[in-house]
Amino acid sequence: MALTEFGLIRRYFDRAASPGQATHASGVALGIGDDCALLRVAPGMELAVSTDMLVEGRHFSPGADARNLGHKSLAVNLSDLAAMGAAPRWATLALSLPEANPQWLEDFSEGLFALAGLHGLSLVGGDTTRGPLTISITVLGELPAGLALYRAGARVGDDLWVSGELGGASLGLAHARGEVKLERGDAAAALKRLHRPEPRVELGERLRGIATSAIDVSDGLAGDLMHILERSGTGALIEYARLPRPSAFHRLAVAEVALEARCVLAGGDDYELAFTAPQAAREELQALSKELGLALTRIGAMQPPGTEPQLLVLDAAGRPMPSQQGFDHFARFNA
Amino acid sequence: MALTEFGLIRRYFDRAASPGQATHASGVALGIGDDCALLRVAPGMELAVSTDMLVEGRHFSPGADARNLGHKSLAVNLSDLAAMGAAPRWATLALSLPEANPQWLEDFSEGLFALAGLHGLSLVGGDTTRGPLTISITVLGELPAGLALYRAGARVGDDLWVSGELGGASLGLAHARGEVKLERGDAAAALKRLHRPEPRVELGERLRGIATSAIDVSDGLAGDLMHILERSGTGALIEYARLPRPSAFHRLAVAEVALEARCVLAGGDDYELAFTAPQAAREELQALSKELGLALTRIGAMQPPGTEPQLLVLDAAGRPMPSQQGFDHFARFNA
Repeated sequence: MALTEFGLIRRYFDRAASPGQATHASGVALGIGDDCALLRVAPGMELAVSTDMLVEGRHFSPGADARNLGHKSLAVNLSDLAAMGAAPRWATLALSLPEANPQWLEDFSEGLFALAGLHGLSLVGGDTTRGPLTISITVLGELPAGLALYRAGARVGDDLWVSGELGGASLGLAHARGEVKLERGDAAAALKRLHRPEPRVELGERLRGIATSAIDVSDGLAGDLMHILERSGTGALIEYARLPRPSAFHRLAVAEVALEARCVLAGGDDYELAFTAPQAAREELQALSKELGLALTRIGAMQPPGTEPQLLVLDAAGRPMPSQQGFDHFARFNA
Repeated sequence: MALTEFGLIRRYFDRAASPGQATHASGVALGIGDDCALLRVAPGMELAVSTDMLVEGRHFSPGADARNLGHKSLAVNLSDLAAMGAAPRWATLALSLPEANPQWLEDFSEGLFALAGLHGLSLVGGDTTRGPLTISITVLGELPAGLALYRAGARVGDDLWVSGELGGASLGLAHARGEVKLERGDAAAALKRLHRPEPRVELGERLRGIATSAIDVSDGLAGDLMHILERSGTGALIEYARLPRPSAFHRLAVAEVALEARCVLAGGDDYELAFTAPQAAREELQALSKELGLALTRIGAMQPPGTEPQLLVLDAAGRPMPSQQGFDHFARFNA
């Protein structure tokens, strides 16, 4: 009984509603403990909402580290807010667990709350149940009305940019699966990218008014960019050599060239932002990169559409590379 | 491929965002198809948020009717909004499915959208993935700031009320499990209560300014009322004979008296509202009952607390009945 009752679950997750934290300042009129949470969206702000579901055996391995899981399950949602230019505010958590393991719950909630705290986000409600390990988080963010970064806003002639590095997370996954053997330092870095992605929340907020469109790289650059092309009605050209990638790839055998292309173009889970911006914004973006201490790399340009939106990736010799599909469990139909 | 791609899932769920529906009027600035949905909360309104997760084999049987599931998985969330006095506005859906079965998806989405349409709610986003059948919905509602029905507002001397009838859903479950044999008409009515509960949304909204506290009866009256007692710091006395219940119970054998008490006091899934109100509100509530065509029954009164919040249930002879525990998968830590 002790492990299954109301009180214990609240012990791990009822932090936002503790006295002094459920303050008006955080927009929480009522936190955990009633039929609903009550929130106050500031005047003039739009509410951004996104939901993800992570399933054991599909999105993470059985026995995955609970702290990492708590971090990552929130990170993937924060990344969606970042791609919209929204500031994280609140979240709900629905959690199905095979058993109420106190150590697991402590680790999971620690990972989740550490990341939430970094971004000023309050957990305001949720549901726990017994069942296959499944984590679903809904995040709510705010942004000034009219300033959201839509997928649909890219224009022909815009530069195409990406933050950070691509391919690290899927390189980590390939290493974990024994498909490739990395040096110890490279392995640690790649696995960190896989298990503890850093959502580009601050970048997203700063791109308001600069970027014309944005998406987060969750399913692979090529697949994710296709959403921008489809919504914006443009094509795009990418120079493969420009794509920022971890230096670990340079230390792989020549035989791994295909692996590199797969990781960099189609590897999911990097949670960087890909965005478009007018050429006139180059200096501003370089300054922003310096200010945030985060690489922002111009990787190509938006092109007129062909008969259908088309993503062209050119290799160092200027030859088209085969297209790479993003990862598709079934599909996220939003976010 | 055809069944797993982006387009097919959107076929079933992307209704809110179709042209003409994602209108400003509904508060949806941007629906399905981007990184987040963008919503506009009306000035002066608070946002009410609730999340539930339903797992196959726990909350519903393997092979359960998909249309009923679509209905019920939304209904349980709408019931939380009702208990808060909030008007339903938007929802997100996270869905894990063993396979992308078109018939199942069509039925499920039909059940969900039929109920959503009744209450003017838009599905604005979500996530689908392959995995054990699991449904998690987050609903967002609006209500005028300061008028929410908290669990904490009950006062000693208030009347205790309940809407509709109690015990029907768990009687249906007992019938489905073969624990009791109902006549055909009684069985149909009880199973309808179990599979297609009617969230008391309109009642919840109308109780603003009348009720002093409210909760929805999801886990059983006795257990759910305890949340009001704990939060309000009161006791309560219920007259068992007053509890409204389906007439099917009268047709059960005398040997089923214990079953009746279990269903009526501790049976979950009825999704009626239990609420407290000042004695001065009796006439107003009787008029409201007539107007809504929904029974509202005064079942007891709020009492001074003992050494701890206590729920006393008296039988027809005025003797205390054994307490009945609500259902607890693990626990909902909000909503």
